[in-house]
Amino acid sequence: MTVTTRQGAAGPVRPTTTAAARLTPLDASAVTLGGGFWGDRVQTNRDVTIPHGFAQLERVGTLGNFRLAAGTPGEYQALGTSIGQVFPFLDSDLYKWLEAVGWELGRAPDPELAGAADRAIADVAAAQRADGYLNTFVQVVGGGRAYRDLEWGHELYCYGHLIQAAVAWHRALDDDRLLEIAWRTVDSIEAALGAGPQARAGVDGHPEIETALVEMYRVTGERRLLDLAQEFVERRGRGLLAEGRFGAAYWQDHAPVRSAPEVAGHAVRQMYLDAGAVDVAVETGDDELLGAVRRRWRDMIASRMSLTGGIGSRHTDEAFGDPYELSPDQVYNETCAAISSVMLSWRLLLATGDPDAADHIERTIFNAVLPGLALDGTRFFYVNPLQRRTHRAVAPGGPGEGGGGERAPWFACACCPPNLMRTLSSWEGYLATTDSTGIQIQQYASAELSTDLPGGGRATLRVETDYPWSGRVAVTIVETADEPWTLGLRVPSWCRSATLVDGSETIELEAGVRIAKRRRSWHAGDVVVLDLAMPVRITTPDPRVDAVRGTLAIERGPLVYAIETADLPAGVELEEIEIEPDVRPEPIPRDDVAPGLVGLRLPAFRRRFASASGTAGDRAITDEPIEVGAVPYFAWGNRSVEAMRVWIPRRGN
Amino acid sequence: MTVTTRQGAAGPVRPTTTAAARLTPLDASAVTLGGGFWGDRVQTNRDVTIPHGFAQLERVGTLGNFRLAAGTPGEYQALGTSIGQVFPFLDSDLYKWLEAVGWELGRAPDPELAGAADRAIADVAAAQRADGYLNTFVQVVGGGRAYRDLEWGHELYCYGHLIQAAVAWHRALDDDRLLEIAWRTVDSIEAALGAGPQARAGVDGHPEIETALVEMYRVTGERRLLDLAQEFVERRGRGLLAEGRFGAAYWQDHAPVRSAPEVAGHAVRQMYLDAGAVDVAVETGDDELLGAVRRRWRDMIASRMSLTGGIGSRHTDEAFGDPYELSPDQVYNETCAAISSVMLSWRLLLATGDPDAADHIERTIFNAVLPGLALDGTRFFYVNPLQRRTHRAVAPGGPGEGGGGERAPWFACACCPPNLMRTLSSWEGYLATTDSTGIQIQQYASAELSTDLPGGGRATLRVETDYPWSGRVAVTIVETADEPWTLGLRVPSWCRSATLVDGSETIELEAGVRIAKRRRSWHAGDVVVLDLAMPVRITTPDPRVDAVRGTLAIERGPLVYAIETADLPAGVELEEIEIEPDVRPEPIPRDDVAPGLVGLRLPAFRRRFASASGTAGDRAITDEPIEVGAVPYFAWGNRSVEAMRVWIPRRGN
Repeated sequence: MTVTTRQGAAGPVRPTTTAAARLTPLDASAVTLGGGFWGDRVQTNRDVTIPHGFAQLERVGTLGNFRLAAGTPGEYQALGTSIGQVFPFLDSDLYKWLEAVGWELGRAPDPELAGAADRAIADVAAAQRADGYLNTFVQVVGGGRAYRDLEWGHELYCYGHLIQAAVAWHRALDDDRLLEIAWRTVDSIEAALGAGPQARAGVDGHPEIETALVEMYRVTGERRLLDLAQEFVERRGRGLLAEGRFGAAYWQDHAPVRSAPEVAGHAVRQMYLDAGAVDVAVETGDDELLGAVRRRWRDMIASRMSLTGGIGSRHTDEAFGDPYELSPDQVYNETCAAISSVMLSWRLLLATGDPDAADHIERTIFNAVLPGLALDGTRFFYVNPLQRRTHRAVAPGGPGEGGGGERAPWFACACCPPNLMRTLSSWEGYLATTDSTGIQIQQYASAELSTDLPGGGRATLRVETDYPWSGRVAVTIVETADEPWTLGLRVPSWCRSATLVDGSETIELEAGVRIAKRRRSWHAGDVVVLDLAMPVRITTPDPRVDAVRGTLAIERGPLVYAIETADLPAGVELEEIEIEPDVRPEPIPRDDVAPGLVGLRLPAFRRRFASASGTAGDRAITDEPIEVGAVPYFAWGNRSVEAMRVWIPRRGN
Repeated sequence: MTVTTRQGAAGPVRPTTTAAARLTPLDASAVTLGGGFWGDRVQTNRDVTIPHGFAQLERVGTLGNFRLAAGTPGEYQALGTSIGQVFPFLDSDLYKWLEAVGWELGRAPDPELAGAADRAIADVAAAQRADGYLNTFVQVVGGGRAYRDLEWGHELYCYGHLIQAAVAWHRALDDDRLLEIAWRTVDSIEAALGAGPQARAGVDGHPEIETALVEMYRVTGERRLLDLAQEFVERRGRGLLAEGRFGAAYWQDHAPVRSAPEVAGHAVRQMYLDAGAVDVAVETGDDELLGAVRRRWRDMIASRMSLTGGIGSRHTDEAFGDPYELSPDQVYNETCAAISSVMLSWRLLLATGDPDAADHIERTIFNAVLPGLALDGTRFFYVNPLQRRTHRAVAPGGPGEGGGGERAPWFACACCPPNLMRTLSSWEGYLATTDSTGIQIQQYASAELSTDLPGGGRATLRVETDYPWSGRVAVTIVETADEPWTLGLRVPSWCRSATLVDGSETIELEAGVRIAKRRRSWHAGDVVVLDLAMPVRITTPDPRVDAVRGTLAIERGPLVYAIETADLPAGVELEEIEIEPDVRPEPIPRDDVAPGLVGLRLPAFRRRFASASGTAGDRAITDEPIEVGAVPYFAWGNRSVEAMRVWIPRRGN
């Protein structure tokens, strides 16, 4: 049962050696983050956010629900939900937290964290039924009726997160307690929905099992896992799910996965599904399937993504809307959707080597994932709009969920917080890749990277950078074999001028170069410096995005900037601020917001109306120069949560 | 019990003679609509929409539910809702339909309609419990537990609509069968929530009972009804309702009615509440309360109303959003909300004489109420956005409810269709008012009006107009007493140049004149002609409405115009159309859309992109002149339902 193929300790996603993938990730254990932007954030995640998560899982009853399922008497717990509305997917919150802990313990021991995880794993194991079925909601509240509500039940979705946690514990720690539980859930799935005589053809309303099964195949080598994943991908889009109140596209059941031309429906569902489809495609060499996902992904980036990388325009069904339906204030941009977008792009990067995928990860992680987490690591945004008005009507939903309030310590539907935890815990896995020619640095962070070389031997590189605050990245060869190999350094598409200095040689990179490559014999002590010019950019919106016509956004390097009330002179309202297209904002240190943070000094204009709330005829405008501050969007709402906007009206428009 | 004060047959809202109201409505029976715009629509409502409504009420089980409550065995019916989600307010759909039928039978007999109504009234009477309680949902499904869920139960809301129907049958027909049922529900309310020893202080989550009780007071003279209405108004905003998932403001329980500074929460709830507050205020001489409603109403018009008069920006909670949160595509603009806004404005017009109120009724009825009804009278929009894109993602909700599809013949939550029916059935009641000086014509439609004169005697006026297609309104005095009186003719605020011709005298009305007044002795045969210049207007949006920055709208007379796919050359997409600020659209007959309809020939530009769906870098634009058609917004979506927009991008923006 638990015969697994040892694969070394890798981060999430490691295509098998026979997979049709262009790039290979580094082992996560072979990447050591240094200090600086990412090192600090990953440390806060480990020291603060993950322990906070455990306390919350205890507080709201998610952990206790497993003990109830194991037979302890008590009432099923779900924070803030009312009778008849209890969410059936809360188990997944614990599984995502366990995945995060797996990566963390692989990085370095932590007895307290390990103890908490041990107790949680024991609770999960005790809750599992003899037939392998495991879902605390169904077992405690739902009368034990398994797989009765595939549309909304989220049973396989929860298994998927359990499996991802199991894969993490296996890869990072060689600890297979969760994998044994996962194997029993697979037996349960196969009996109910696999090829067995009692099984029926069904799919889960929320994709996630597909990518998880392929990852489990990758660590176990068991082909039936891949087959099952493939089967779930192929079954979708054929009407096996009921229509539901949001229609078939909500759960991507409106068209087969290999032919649906555009992303549609619930954003997280679409991304998880397509992540699984890429996993199946690379492991089975299915170019048609991979091509379909790429087409959808490109179309999404072009027409259904906020400047921040956020996706999912509609609150009602957390769905992609129409093309160019990207309202800055009405947009949903769930934190989980951004994470799922990174997951998909990472798989596409490995599959295809397309530098757009790494660019997309960069835009999304900085501007759509990170905003979901307070700088102190204990509060979360569920919804990430690009505008919040000064004068707030009472917002629907709980704190943060409706985008209406402060970041919240937890949510009734707490999918986002542990999703952030597992993403940050495995972040170093996204930094670099290898292929048959050498090593590619995909994301810039101070770190030491170590990997086998294609020609044999091992290389260790030290990356030093103040990214994203500066565009200078120094790579020192610490150790290498003598055979020549290629060092690749991604040139982000936002960069219009870049220089590579290799020893005494300075190369001005031509426009359009996406990966700066140096192939030669390397020696310990060699230093290559990539210098990405990082002037402030004034971004005009795509004219097809109706909701931001006549506005401008400000970007610098990989960061989208925002203005917020905290950086306005007293008495000035955010809605009064306009800028001109030729504005020249100036970078300034803003250690008051966060250590090392680079803000902008922004020359603007204040237009004023006769009254703040206005009357129908009150359009008399005066405007006067004013200087305001701007901060990276990811850092907004960490002082006061008042008004904020990314797209700023163009003066006089 | 049923001693009522005969008051003549009036339309909705007739303040008592002691009320602090400036204007008095005409008797509905004293207004006979002629042919033309409104006459045709009211006729279609009577001949097509109301019978369609009865068939739908039978089909979906709303009528049958009353028979179940009376003891007939069967299962509670609710179209398209699932178990646990059945709406508790469906009774109100029948009551609103009955109100419409009351007004219609008052206008002229119709044996078939009368027969249907007789059966419905008998079913309602049979369903009522001995203690006066009446709610089919609670009686059939809810175990008979009355007033247990004031937040969501809608029991008093349903009574309110029952009472409004009862008032209509009393005023129009002197038929008090419904009034007798209504009296028993009042007994039930008083016992549970009134001043009795067993009663508790509660309010209904959905206002409506307040205005209904005052109207019932007006036809019965029973002071306790007014007191009860006043009590419900005063109780609100004091935390008697639980917070609920949308917060206290959702049901206007966040601040007392006499102090809340702005409209907030669910739009229909706010309007019904404020309508009731005005009713209470005028009957009790409460200027403070009236002032609070007026302030909210003015602020709403200035900052929370679409150009069409539509209100309610958010889908999630059908709520007013923040000021200037008026996204053309994301806006909710429920048909019922527009109707409720007309109801409030009508009460304010009577209370204050403010011509803005009549202007607001005009804008709203043409551009926010009428779009909810197909030209053929059998299909309805629930949601009325000002933009719909060519490329539609699958929309949430049922047909029409999400604003995503064609108008639908009925809805699971069918509040809007019978609300349209009762509004159109009583529309002639909104056309004119009287005061101590004479007669004011408030809305323009071909009609004959008859009323008592302030100095004694009676006047009959014949109004002839092609409004809203032309601005010429001819008023002929058919009959009058000799005493001088003042004829007032509203000059809409959209009109910048108007002329009044009285016999041989021609008066150019000065800018700012809101009511053209002529005071003299009148004689049969006198003709006064008001000529309202009606050039096409290019409207720039308030710069504070972020979502329509850089666009222009087109209006003519009281009508907002829209462009839609059906009026574009083949192959052109609506998103490609831009116009210039100095564009001169030309009125043209569009009998192909509807008889007599005036459309516009609109010189525009077509901007084109390299690909329709676009890629991130694809911003190359070409533009070329093109001529497109525009139709009144109320008429959109009556051919194909494809793309539509009211706010059109300004060229090159």
